[in-house]
Amino acid sequence: MSLDPARMIPMANAIRALSMDAVQKAQSGHPGMPMGMADVATVLWSNYLKYDSAAPHWADRDRFVLSAGHGSMLIYSLLHLSGYAHPTMEEIENFRQLGSPTAGHPENFLLPGVECTTGPLGQGLAMAVGMAMAERHLNAEFGDELVDHRTWVIAGDGCLMEGINHEAIGLAGHLNLSRLVVFWDDNQITIDGSTDLSTSENVRARFEATGWFVNSCDGHDYADIARAIDEALEANRPALIACRTMIGRGAPNKQGTAATHGAPLGAEEVAAAREELNWQSEPFQIPDQVREEWRSAGSRGHEMRSDWGTRLDNSERKAEFERRMAGDLPGGFDLKEFISGLIREPAKVATRKASENALAVINSKLPETVGGSADLTGSNNTKTADQNIFSADDRSGRYVYYGIREFGMSAAMNGMALHGGVIPYGGTFLVFSDYCRPAIRLSALQQARVIYVMTHDSIGLGEDGPTHQPVEHLQSLRVIPNLLVMRPGDAVETAECWEIALQQKKRPSVLALSRQGLAQFRTEAAEENRSARGAYRVKDAEADRRVILIATGSEVGLALECAADLEKRGIGADVVSMPCSELFDEQSPAYRDNILPNVGPEEILRVSIEAGTTFGWERYTMANGLRIGIDSFGTSAPAEDAFEKFGFTSEAIIRKVVAKLEE
Amino acid sequence: MSLDPARMIPMANAIRALSMDAVQKAQSGHPGMPMGMADVATVLWSNYLKYDSAAPHWADRDRFVLSAGHGSMLIYSLLHLSGYAHPTMEEIENFRQLGSPTAGHPENFLLPGVECTTGPLGQGLAMAVGMAMAERHLNAEFGDELVDHRTWVIAGDGCLMEGINHEAIGLAGHLNLSRLVVFWDDNQITIDGSTDLSTSENVRARFEATGWFVNSCDGHDYADIARAIDEALEANRPALIACRTMIGRGAPNKQGTAATHGAPLGAEEVAAAREELNWQSEPFQIPDQVREEWRSAGSRGHEMRSDWGTRLDNSERKAEFERRMAGDLPGGFDLKEFISGLIREPAKVATRKASENALAVINSKLPETVGGSADLTGSNNTKTADQNIFSADDRSGRYVYYGIREFGMSAAMNGMALHGGVIPYGGTFLVFSDYCRPAIRLSALQQARVIYVMTHDSIGLGEDGPTHQPVEHLQSLRVIPNLLVMRPGDAVETAECWEIALQQKKRPSVLALSRQGLAQFRTEAAEENRSARGAYRVKDAEADRRVILIATGSEVGLALECAADLEKRGIGADVVSMPCSELFDEQSPAYRDNILPNVGPEEILRVSIEAGTTFGWERYTMANGLRIGIDSFGTSAPAEDAFEKFGFTSEAIIRKVVAKLEE
Repeated sequence: MSLDPARMIPMANAIRALSMDAVQKAQSGHPGMPMGMADVATVLWSNYLKYDSAAPHWADRDRFVLSAGHGSMLIYSLLHLSGYAHPTMEEIENFRQLGSPTAGHPENFLLPGVECTTGPLGQGLAMAVGMAMAERHLNAEFGDELVDHRTWVIAGDGCLMEGINHEAIGLAGHLNLSRLVVFWDDNQITIDGSTDLSTSENVRARFEATGWFVNSCDGHDYADIARAIDEALEANRPALIACRTMIGRGAPNKQGTAATHGAPLGAEEVAAAREELNWQSEPFQIPDQVREEWRSAGSRGHEMRSDWGTRLDNSERKAEFERRMAGDLPGGFDLKEFISGLIREPAKVATRKASENALAVINSKLPETVGGSADLTGSNNTKTADQNIFSADDRSGRYVYYGIREFGMSAAMNGMALHGGVIPYGGTFLVFSDYCRPAIRLSALQQARVIYVMTHDSIGLGEDGPTHQPVEHLQSLRVIPNLLVMRPGDAVETAECWEIALQQKKRPSVLALSRQGLAQFRTEAAEENRSARGAYRVKDAEADRRVILIATGSEVGLALECAADLEKRGIGADVVSMPCSELFDEQSPAYRDNILPNVGPEEILRVSIEAGTTFGWERYTMANGLRIGIDSFGTSAPAEDAFEKFGFTSEAIIRKVVAKLEE
Repeated sequence: MSLDPARMIPMANAIRALSMDAVQKAQSGHPGMPMGMADVATVLWSNYLKYDSAAPHWADRDRFVLSAGHGSMLIYSLLHLSGYAHPTMEEIENFRQLGSPTAGHPENFLLPGVECTTGPLGQGLAMAVGMAMAERHLNAEFGDELVDHRTWVIAGDGCLMEGINHEAIGLAGHLNLSRLVVFWDDNQITIDGSTDLSTSENVRARFEATGWFVNSCDGHDYADIARAIDEALEANRPALIACRTMIGRGAPNKQGTAATHGAPLGAEEVAAAREELNWQSEPFQIPDQVREEWRSAGSRGHEMRSDWGTRLDNSERKAEFERRMAGDLPGGFDLKEFISGLIREPAKVATRKASENALAVINSKLPETVGGSADLTGSNNTKTADQNIFSADDRSGRYVYYGIREFGMSAAMNGMALHGGVIPYGGTFLVFSDYCRPAIRLSALQQARVIYVMTHDSIGLGEDGPTHQPVEHLQSLRVIPNLLVMRPGDAVETAECWEIALQQKKRPSVLALSRQGLAQFRTEAAEENRSARGAYRVKDAEADRRVILIATGSEVGLALECAADLEKRGIGADVVSMPCSELFDEQSPAYRDNILPNVGPEEILRVSIEAGTTFGWERYTMANGLRIGIDSFGTSAPAEDAFEKFGFTSEAIIRKVVAKLEE
């Protein structure tokens, strides 16, 4: 399409008007970014971005990521103007109001066309890296005919100051993700004022140092923007385009200042901007001519999509492609046979090793898995023998050496899962879930099937000491909504937990796995995936039931030891394994009451045993129950010594249980 | 001292021998890094580092940070050899054993000379930035005579791949922290193998882009190392020295490979290394000559320290300097008068604003506070009128524009607190505590008085929506050991919480503050700081007590509304404000029982009200109590609408309470 300013200026101004008017009406929001980047976005969405506004879920569409998510009115304007079914103008008028999909920050689960949830700065860019990885991987698998698209990002100064951008661009540069183009909204303004207040970095040189192609343009000159994009597309490297812009462009008295960043312009300035922009329409009115131009931009991809549909229909791989993009597992996928084998030949293994064994089966049955680790491959046991490396030279590889980039890995996995067609999993130590945490939260919020393989899950890792020993991490992850935290106690539970994690189409999972070997307590065949109940009885009281020991992971074996000893003393003890408290909470009241009968401690004492904080365990032990845990930081010592120091021996636990029973 | 290899090689080999022998004996640990960096460390500790091994706490010593903390045997060797009282040889023989201060990773609270706890990669470097900031700030305050030292860092590839290093070096470059020198152990090896597997970055160019001076050396050539340091010291900029080294240098068959990184070399290779290094001593034996050389290196600073002591004795500012370095508050410091004023003139203010008001007093009374924000100054209300900006040009400034670097800010604050002489506080939104979390954990582990000012503490922030609305954050912070999480409910509690936070010499604090205005419920004078109890009764039941409402922060006012309504219905209700559950848990059983009597819900129903996850509240409500909270992500809407949607109105709560009472 033409870049004639006579056509482009009104198109861009439509974005500016919607943005300033919606923010003004909501009396909250960020007009500066959409007004500053309106011209760049108009060039992109009218001339480059491959999309069809009638088909937001088209698998081969370009992905557009507004990493600077506070500028949400930019993407809402673009979606509306280009003809997406949503947001409607009414929804735009209800910007930031309860129940409207036009949330303060763009939410992927509210609006098709919003590829990911952005707002926590830097993560949009990092997710885009994952999308670009998924695209190249699927391209290697399905060919140019079915997978041949780009990922475009708008990032602000905030995105480029956040540490995660370093990890993301390092990964993108190393993998040479040439289908990735990042527009940097170089407006030299942050919330606190001029960027000079806090940074003196040569951003261009930094990207170049990381293997990126770097280009610049005047972000308000359509031809120059197009030139910069054209050059970027020819570079065959991931590309940064520094767009020199004026924040709040069009607001004559406030543009170029932090005042436009995060507050309504005010009625007076909005009126002045209307004049400045020569925008005569009432708020939320778009002139027919402008609407038509935008609609025609939004349907540019229609024919391409139709051709693509024909190619898909003619493809032998249609069913497989559609299955993978839909995120469905192959019909009949389960791990039953594998689990039967484990039950036939019980073994003492670390659950991280049990996880590797399960993965060997999973990776052979599910071509969509893409594994990796943040430089702990041999410790996380995340790589199986058949996995080749995903690299700049080989896009078909199904294993990623993410480097020492836990957060970048996690965000990239979000992008991969949201792109679709792959199921990402990646490893680090459980204690470093803290580094990943902002991305784990976004996995959960975005309903992304990402599987975090977190090994070395307690003081049981031993000598590395408190910096490496998770204590508060299990509970701190369990508080995140829509996240399954699973801590299997033996090889069978590990396989069951993997099965569960893979089945969650709209929920991420954390697998917390042991470094140390664990005896197998699940030695009897079961019809169902018992871990899917969240908690279940692994041993029934023999003597009169006075105690229920509730344990997770490596402590289930310990609980069984304790129970055996208690029985010898004539104290009947159930042992409940609770690999996933979230799933247990979802069971019927009858099931839960069967496992944890609602009676007082004078009748049945409930005892939790987990080598981590006791905080929160009152939910299952009740306040008057007993909680065996660790409420301080760990210690550097061989695992056995550390466990003994913190009272994780059957003797120490039985002493406490008996004392409590005698209270 | 001389750099003669004949003298230096045995000194460096002593480090190599101790490192490989200690790891071998412990059967766990990381020999590769200490052996690779032994030569660089020897040059630094024998010729440049300003220290006196007889006085590890000398205030004007250089700070040495082993950011690559897994190489802990390097610093243990250096401390031992140079004559520190600890670790003793016996402690080195007990490397990584229970009770020995030679933990798997260096712990500042176990060994003088270990300036900070390292191991979580990248954070050592980022803390060093804070140390260098503190040094310049104190220099501006106390002059060259008392404060004139450097900060030295050894960082590995991991440190430089982690996102935090981007934030740290960006800050250091912008602030031109020329007293900071970073040695990069450029050994081209990570755990997964060659760095080629995961990175293609030009590290040198990246540092240059950020305003650093960059230099290189052969990390095994003493003269070349010294040349590189000399040049760095002349550069007047923060400096990176890329030290080309061979990991595991001296182990003839394994050096240069990942095999030396994180596992014992094995008896055979240790023997081969002894031969290669021509090191004939038995394990844990140091030849007298070598020991002497090292002792003389370790006492190089003795005279300097003695001269410094004379200058301090002669200084008018001696008492103030010593007070500040000891971390003592000025005698008689408290906020009583300020609080009395608040009580005299109650006002409805957001607690973030109340915090600003308290800070105005605090900053005027405590010259040691250094505030800042991660680009949310106006939202966090962290800057008071009298604070100038700490910048490259003005080191006396007491406010830092940290930029959009939450994690970097937090780690820098750790470094400042550990350096001593300043009390750092810094702001961001509570939801972004996730970005800071790895540093918050280290504040707690390191017993560092860092005060996190976390505003916008619930869905009450309104329109910004779920990405910005903390839901799980309060509880997820409360599970971290040795951290005070304080959520004041009005202006008085806010001032009380500030007073508490400042008084914690060995504990960090998080202040969770509201965006929205909160009515003042504390209108009666009190003798004590009531918040210091953690929880206390703000309203006694009038009718027969059937209910205790336990609330925090913005929900205390709501609880009072509910209680008033319940009383009208003849249901007596206490209201307990719980600004800090950790402090409440530390109270005497009698006090706790007075506030929360240990009776069942049929007698007194306990109800928690907090606009966040209900997880963990069973501790205070008991399992059969009632928990009013939010167990999903938030929503984008004006605050009032969001509160209503999630049932945070007195009507909705009373309905639930009454239903529960009638059960």
